[in-house]
Amino acid sequence: MTIQIDRLSSEIDELATFSEHPAPAVTRVLFSPEDLRARRWLDEKCRAAGLQTRFDAVGNFFARRAGADPTLPPMATGSHTDAIPNAGKFDGVVGVLGGLEALRALDEAGVRLRHSVELIMFTAEEPTRFGIGCLGSRLMASSLSPAAVGELRDPQGRSLADLRSEAALTGSLDDVALPHGCYSAFVELHIEQGPILERDGFDIGVVEKIAAPAALRVRLIGEGGHAGALLMPDRHDAGLGAAEAALALEKIVLASGSPDGVGTTGVVRLLPGAINSVPCEALLEMDIRDTQLATRDAVLRGLSEAIDEIATRRGLQAHIEIISADPPATCDPVLVKTVETVALNAGLRTTRMVSRAYHDSLFMARLAPMTMIFIPCRNGFSHRPDEYSSLAQIERGVRVLAETFQALDAF
Amino acid sequence: MTIQIDRLSSEIDELATFSEHPAPAVTRVLFSPEDLRARRWLDEKCRAAGLQTRFDAVGNFFARRAGADPTLPPMATGSHTDAIPNAGKFDGVVGVLGGLEALRALDEAGVRLRHSVELIMFTAEEPTRFGIGCLGSRLMASSLSPAAVGELRDPQGRSLADLRSEAALTGSLDDVALPHGCYSAFVELHIEQGPILERDGFDIGVVEKIAAPAALRVRLIGEGGHAGALLMPDRHDAGLGAAEAALALEKIVLASGSPDGVGTTGVVRLLPGAINSVPCEALLEMDIRDTQLATRDAVLRGLSEAIDEIATRRGLQAHIEIISADPPATCDPVLVKTVETVALNAGLRTTRMVSRAYHDSLFMARLAPMTMIFIPCRNGFSHRPDEYSSLAQIERGVRVLAETFQALDAF
Repeated sequence: MTIQIDRLSSEIDELATFSEHPAPAVTRVLFSPEDLRARRWLDEKCRAAGLQTRFDAVGNFFARRAGADPTLPPMATGSHTDAIPNAGKFDGVVGVLGGLEALRALDEAGVRLRHSVELIMFTAEEPTRFGIGCLGSRLMASSLSPAAVGELRDPQGRSLADLRSEAALTGSLDDVALPHGCYSAFVELHIEQGPILERDGFDIGVVEKIAAPAALRVRLIGEGGHAGALLMPDRHDAGLGAAEAALALEKIVLASGSPDGVGTTGVVRLLPGAINSVPCEALLEMDIRDTQLATRDAVLRGLSEAIDEIATRRGLQAHIEIISADPPATCDPVLVKTVETVALNAGLRTTRMVSRAYHDSLFMARLAPMTMIFIPCRNGFSHRPDEYSSLAQIERGVRVLAETFQALDAF
Repeated sequence: MTIQIDRLSSEIDELATFSEHPAPAVTRVLFSPEDLRARRWLDEKCRAAGLQTRFDAVGNFFARRAGADPTLPPMATGSHTDAIPNAGKFDGVVGVLGGLEALRALDEAGVRLRHSVELIMFTAEEPTRFGIGCLGSRLMASSLSPAAVGELRDPQGRSLADLRSEAALTGSLDDVALPHGCYSAFVELHIEQGPILERDGFDIGVVEKIAAPAALRVRLIGEGGHAGALLMPDRHDAGLGAAEAALALEKIVLASGSPDGVGTTGVVRLLPGAINSVPCEALLEMDIRDTQLATRDAVLRGLSEAIDEIATRRGLQAHIEIISADPPATCDPVLVKTVETVALNAGLRTTRMVSRAYHDSLFMARLAPMTMIFIPCRNGFSHRPDEYSSLAQIERGVRVLAETFQALDAF
């Protein structure tokens, strides 16, 4: 089987041009003009490869390679093409365009499979626009209700319904959910987004478990006033409360002693946001993860107590909203073993590992046996313009994916 | 002399409708569509009052009531009409529309003065758009060079030159500066923006001194990465550095023991600003003031040392830019005494005080003898939608201003 890595490479570069920020940065936010153009482009590429394509009501994209036995549930692969502000060109994209390349490689090698194989591009794996990640796969796996999705508003107050309608996505969100067992297997190819494979000299990581993520939004309400005239003892500065909350999260995660525990305050917004005004309100978005659910939940509780203490001491009101708090996902042992055997037989240095980043696979695990194939990325960098995996590294990942479909087709 | 407070009240309300945010909030940022409409509206109001109007190259607005002796340097009053996001309708506006009302009251009472009186609306007293306050009066008083102004960019990267050109402000910035002695007196009417007058039962505060303000911009550069995959010990989180810097400013100001010292972090921006990304960069805007220059500068030095320590410990780069650091202004003793006498003669409860907020008067003091007339505002609130002074309080301030012109005309 031949992976046409030059074709894949030029497609990755072409997709990177659909970006709100100039290269090497990639910014492609859900249903932005760039995202909409990328979606049309992907649809055309898949049709040109002879795949049968469709979008569901939330914009998840499916491209099917038909199998010999239509009575079998298809196998599936896929990832996302949306990108946070000033990200790189590989996160998600390697799984989508690499998945497409794997299907073309099977065709070009004349491999006929009993199972159909579906390539999926999931809507809004990144939480940028609506504050919640994996919007498409959550809906697909019924871990988020269409009603809850109907409540979502972006920072400009726009609803998902409006944006769907502008994107010409008709149909009901009720029809996005798929039944358990709809796929016989789901295997996602992805860059590691961490330093382990590169550091330890592995070509392929086979994911055994995905860490449990939680996301929360904290709103602190104090009292504004003039930065010159409002004296220090009279202040209820929401911005300083936010500063303490962010530092408390770091302290609590470090104190948990968990080697996999992480806590991040990635978003802070101050109101009114003027240099000469005491902040009357602060909005924080925080991300907490651990491979152990108990440790993750202990950090969540500790943070909540710390924020209450800060708010009381500073005379602020605190509202803590848990956007999502998902359990970890355990990968299917048979799939893990299959990917591992395929990779070892191809002579690749292979290890089993945990994904500390979450992926659409976390939710696809509720619908089908699941695992992920990780490839190294330089310095473990991701979500930044210098994110990088070499063409040789990508080629190995795509080859393992394609050969995994062949191996699984025998089951 | 009769102050037509109903006319003034309806004008204050009308001006408040030129706002980007709905009432009671007022948002009127320099050269926004709302600010441009407010400028045209003010020009029409002043022309209708028989005043001779002009804009200078940076958009400072002058409306002149001609005096009997054109050889005398005019007296002047004025303030600003720009408003930070979600501010109230009185800050600055009471000085501009109250100044206009004072000139009309002199006319309607048939008062003929030897001196001309100019009403000035200063461009961008608020630092919202370009990060530096009192842009118009700084240029007028030559405390900022036209070349430095040429370098200014707003957060969208737009230059002041572009915005001036859109606002049809032609002419050279070199012509904005006025010579020392161009006015025989400058008296600014303003709400106190602090709690003292209301708390102690005074109608009028006569300002003897304006506190020394400083503004700085701090840029912290760390390393970004994926919030799930980048482990805590490997992080150089610029957002957490920013949190520590904001708390350090509070601590240093409190430790200075100065009763008038204030320090505020009103603006924090994180990049990339995504919930699932470790912040690679943080931008802070900080405001530091004290009536004592030595204490203010000691806080500036202490903060600078603290930020260096934070940056070293967290592996961040720190860039500290001092946007402005102005000395305090001392008001003219003759003017202070004149305003005080006028107010006491009108039977008003009057006190002398310090302005902890800065105003265009801080810079007008370099061109002319200067003082300010303060009126109470509820709870000392300012820069927020519930900012409030009663019509009776405003009427007293306008009356004192008009009668001060009469008193000064005798000199």
